[in-house]
Amino acid sequence: MTRLSLIGIGTGNPDHVTLAAVRALNAADLVLLPRKGDAKSDLVDLRRLLCRDLLESSSRTRIVEFDLPQRDTRSDYLDAVDDWHGAIARVWGELMATHLPEGGQAAMLIWGDPSLYDSSLRIAGRLSAVGRAVEVEVVPGITSLQVLTAEHRIPLNAVAEPVQITTGRRLRERGWPTDAASVAVMLDSGGAFDALPPEGLYIWWGAYLGMDKQTLIEGWLVDAAPSIIEHRAVLRERHGWIMDTYLLARTPLYDN
Amino acid sequence: MTRLSLIGIGTGNPDHVTLAAVRALNAADLVLLPRKGDAKSDLVDLRRLLCRDLLESSSRTRIVEFDLPQRDTRSDYLDAVDDWHGAIARVWGELMATHLPEGGQAAMLIWGDPSLYDSSLRIAGRLSAVGRAVEVEVVPGITSLQVLTAEHRIPLNAVAEPVQITTGRRLRERGWPTDAASVAVMLDSGGAFDALPPEGLYIWWGAYLGMDKQTLIEGWLVDAAPSIIEHRAVLRERHGWIMDTYLLARTPLYDN
Repeated sequence: MTRLSLIGIGTGNPDHVTLAAVRALNAADLVLLPRKGDAKSDLVDLRRLLCRDLLESSSRTRIVEFDLPQRDTRSDYLDAVDDWHGAIARVWGELMATHLPEGGQAAMLIWGDPSLYDSSLRIAGRLSAVGRAVEVEVVPGITSLQVLTAEHRIPLNAVAEPVQITTGRRLRERGWPTDAASVAVMLDSGGAFDALPPEGLYIWWGAYLGMDKQTLIEGWLVDAAPSIIEHRAVLRERHGWIMDTYLLARTPLYDN
Repeated sequence: MTRLSLIGIGTGNPDHVTLAAVRALNAADLVLLPRKGDAKSDLVDLRRLLCRDLLESSSRTRIVEFDLPQRDTRSDYLDAVDDWHGAIARVWGELMATHLPEGGQAAMLIWGDPSLYDSSLRIAGRLSAVGRAVEVEVVPGITSLQVLTAEHRIPLNAVAEPVQITTGRRLRERGWPTDAASVAVMLDSGGAFDALPPEGLYIWWGAYLGMDKQTLIEGWLVDAAPSIIEHRAVLRERHGWIMDTYLLARTPLYDN
């Protein structure tokens, strides 16, 4: 039997790793490290760094890197994602068959937390279809949203009010959610807040959260939006990739 | 100058504490531990236990317990909360004046993460009004929602879909949020899901998440609701208090 730990590792600040994550990493026989192409090599480097820093010398954990299959860019997004997950499950299954032929403890280091806009749970659920059923364990990790609010020193929710977590795509399509006093946006390919009438909206934005190159901007959306779009373009050019997230609120999140 | 660290400590599983939290705790001159009355003494005990386990012998951190002012139960909820935050800020200010007369590093251990349905950031923001301005630092922590999804091994969101985080009170008042494919409910005083037509809804419920007495129930809401309500009453009677949270989804969160 193979067990698979999906270990949330936070967003790049090694101090945000939990004691449970350190323990799970050291208990693994095999860690699979996906390579995502040159542009995002920072992310692979960070995982390598975490393994180096957190693996104890007594640990027998083996680290195996592999090339992550590419998602095709056809127009039906959900269909493309579905095929992509199937392709990744096949690769995971093959790697486990090669490196853990007798079964054992495998682990993946998951950016942020495996529960939030991450595919690893869904991919793990497909391993039985590729002949490699595993028993899954999840170790929660600090998300970029939590680093965003911590670094801006703000709550996610207005007092006793709902908060919506959504994607840039959905924010563009649907506008401000009806029932939320604040909205957190992830996976935005750039400036989805431009789809909203900016009046009365405040934004707290962050890129590369938890990393040395972390950048924060906040302000009334009407003033901050052009600055965020400009910074985002410059930073993306400089580093070859960008991941950013932001919180929007209509009402003050504090009212002291 | 006084600095105040709001340290997210997770939900009672000491392994969910981050390295940053351990560091911040050990760097503090003063830790303020609120006592919340007999019924919730487990929560104070857990904080005491964390301090005992995580403070290094070389640390000079002093721990001071205090009685948390009670919130009055008048009908205007936001008004009562506002007064209550003011009263707590005065107590924090007095404790810092007494124990850190020359300034220094104070810390509070915050259940979960200081950003999510927690008042400490708002209370800290009122310290200047009581003559004790502080510089605030936030250390993110694992929330009960993350432990819920980890223990049930489920994502929080359906693929590329928004998720709403709300309170039991709002769910009762407003029903299912218009724009969300899944809804996470916190601070429910009991069974707010009963306000929803249960058809087609699935629930993942957890109480005392991260603790030894953790209890999980999942199922179609129409079947699981009576069982959850019964378990909740029994557990609350047995332990003297209960904290629970749950995730509801209309569509399968997995569709393999």
